[in-house]
Amino acid sequence: MKIEVIVIGSEILSGFTINTNAAFISQELLKEGVDTHYHTIVSDDAESLRKALVEALERSDVIITTGGLGPTCDDLTRSVAADLFDSDFIYHPEIEEELQKRYGNKLVSARDQATLPEKAEIIKNTLGTASGLLFKKNEKSLYLLPGVPPEMMEMFSKSVLPRILSKISPEEKKRNVWLHFTFLIESKVDPTLRKLQKLYPTIEMGIYPYRGKISVHLSGLIHDQKGLDACRKVLLEEFGKYHYESLSGKIEEAIHNLFSNNGLTLATAESCTGGTIASRLTVLAGASQYFLGGMITYSNQMKTEFLGVSENTLNDTGAVSEEVVIQMAEGVINKTGADYGIAVSGVAGPTGGTEKKPVGTVWVAIANKDNETTSWLIQGKKASREMIIDYTVNTVLGRLYHIVTRSL
Amino acid sequence: MKIEVIVIGSEILSGFTINTNAAFISQELLKEGVDTHYHTIVSDDAESLRKALVEALERSDVIITTGGLGPTCDDLTRSVAADLFDSDFIYHPEIEEELQKRYGNKLVSARDQATLPEKAEIIKNTLGTASGLLFKKNEKSLYLLPGVPPEMMEMFSKSVLPRILSKISPEEKKRNVWLHFTFLIESKVDPTLRKLQKLYPTIEMGIYPYRGKISVHLSGLIHDQKGLDACRKVLLEEFGKYHYESLSGKIEEAIHNLFSNNGLTLATAESCTGGTIASRLTVLAGASQYFLGGMITYSNQMKTEFLGVSENTLNDTGAVSEEVVIQMAEGVINKTGADYGIAVSGVAGPTGGTEKKPVGTVWVAIANKDNETTSWLIQGKKASREMIIDYTVNTVLGRLYHIVTRSL
Repeated sequence: MKIEVIVIGSEILSGFTINTNAAFISQELLKEGVDTHYHTIVSDDAESLRKALVEALERSDVIITTGGLGPTCDDLTRSVAADLFDSDFIYHPEIEEELQKRYGNKLVSARDQATLPEKAEIIKNTLGTASGLLFKKNEKSLYLLPGVPPEMMEMFSKSVLPRILSKISPEEKKRNVWLHFTFLIESKVDPTLRKLQKLYPTIEMGIYPYRGKISVHLSGLIHDQKGLDACRKVLLEEFGKYHYESLSGKIEEAIHNLFSNNGLTLATAESCTGGTIASRLTVLAGASQYFLGGMITYSNQMKTEFLGVSENTLNDTGAVSEEVVIQMAEGVINKTGADYGIAVSGVAGPTGGTEKKPVGTVWVAIANKDNETTSWLIQGKKASREMIIDYTVNTVLGRLYHIVTRSL
Repeated sequence: MKIEVIVIGSEILSGFTINTNAAFISQELLKEGVDTHYHTIVSDDAESLRKALVEALERSDVIITTGGLGPTCDDLTRSVAADLFDSDFIYHPEIEEELQKRYGNKLVSARDQATLPEKAEIIKNTLGTASGLLFKKNEKSLYLLPGVPPEMMEMFSKSVLPRILSKISPEEKKRNVWLHFTFLIESKVDPTLRKLQKLYPTIEMGIYPYRGKISVHLSGLIHDQKGLDACRKVLLEEFGKYHYESLSGKIEEAIHNLFSNNGLTLATAESCTGGTIASRLTVLAGASQYFLGGMITYSNQMKTEFLGVSENTLNDTGAVSEEVVIQMAEGVINKTGADYGIAVSGVAGPTGGTEKKPVGTVWVAIANKDNETTSWLIQGKKASREMIIDYTVNTVLGRLYHIVTRSL
């Protein structure tokens, strides 16, 4: 069964909004062993939309669209789809009633939102005003969902995913293995994967490097299960020391579980990463279980006042130095009583670099309560500010993961 | 001229990696007044790739692909494209030499990376190992670029964009107007846009709400210039008080410019947003000009110790309360000497909510040096933790923007 996602909206096509809806749908499908075959993003004009739907109906069995179902002037998905399926519109008084119950009379578009294509099955939206729609014809299914993420997510998980899964046999479902590593580069893993590919030619293999991390993806059908297990074993034997355990692939998830499960606490002292370490950790639910807090000490004065970094050291070595990050990491433990402290100070650029400390020079330290402190230098990478920050966050959390797992 | 971007990679199609390459390319094109017509994301197997290229060559004039040019086993773009254009491969000793100059003998794939389709023009990659390629046939151009963002970005900006622009006449170029607002909802703007659409039917109009912000996009050709100016004027007259000035549409960019240009300083005290305000501000180059630092006080102890929040208040009202955020905002000014202080404390969920303070309850305060403090409550929105955090960050920065601009 070929599944395609079509995201409708000029704001995504123009690059103004990053497309997360398609990723969500494909992730949910993948968890159930179902691949997505195609993503398409089209603008919300009628002509492009119509063409995209026609092409998708030719090449895919199930098409899920998001966006363009709202009441405003640029929302055309309903009418374009209705036209394709030769459907008239009918008014559903019970939907208007339900909308008025929820929103009162302030919803001027209630009647419009309750007028829907006759030939479509209606998918209930309990969070917003736009109903989802399901059109069927010649074994093909076209699901139309709203673009607002919480609405789309709930409707997909509750109404669309179960319908798709009911039509897929266990033999069709993919078995997926994901392995995640830090401090490992693609060219080290590639020879091993090539050897494994020769041994197990029916297994699909991919390596995905991303800002200090690498993920290896293996995928096969039911008869590949033994091969998948064998590949997994070989990769862990060879690269186990770089491996971290995380369902999402996010290193912060690995840290979250490691600290929560072992009753450990963490605090952060960030300069050039500017709160990104803390932000990435705390966006995960339950972070308060282990994360005590953090300081973003951009100015030298704050480094001294809040973390106890010596003014002399700052004057002698500058804020971007091994001495300073060690004092920051130890300082944040002293001030908060955390089991582990992380400190980062660097030149994230694009300006502020010098010959001795070019853009991308980042000093990092990890300390624990017993005054065991590890520090290291990330060397000037030619990359954007955002990438330098992300690379730093991923590698410092990766190193923390390995330090803590080995100490348990 | 119809332009299409094809992103190649199972990690993107599976939702594992968020697709930022397509957004970058479309944003760069849009800045020059050129629309992207289509985005497609396909997996890196030969069959899907071939089909996607064939379809794209039928519907678009210029196709830009990213990904699948590396030396590893899952990199197939080169060979699939060469096959489509009936091209043999030839070895370029000068490219291997250049790669060896840069990487020495450790690059085992140098010969492979120097063996390229004969019929393609080579696009130099100064940051990585994979050359870009340009195939041409019957007025259609197919550009192949690597998927690694810094390499792709440089090659696109230096080599691809100028070639595309040289073939587009001024008459074909779009004029774009973007207006960004906070504290404004879509249904308030829609009636005005509908009126404007009737007056200026050739102008394309769209409204894009996103987590506490709204962007309005107007787009037209050279003869629409007067209409675009008139629409802009109407929208600013009607909704000016919600407007903020930002090229990227990011409210943090508006804050960045406002504070930097006026010599003001800012510090943050975050609880439930966990460093996201600071992170969003400091990812912009030059943030140290105005951002002094911040505290992420997850625990009550840290709120008291670092910000001077009264223990009695914490006991009486709880950490999520108006009294506490006011003390946090005033405390962070006292401790850092900043001109403005922001404080946030709330229940980001999904757990931790109570009947009185359900998930989504967030108290926010903005203080200035003269002890003028504004505080308000964000009411429990039914949304994910990540969305509650983002919504809070966008609205608190939006309010700060309006408070500061009115005080100048």
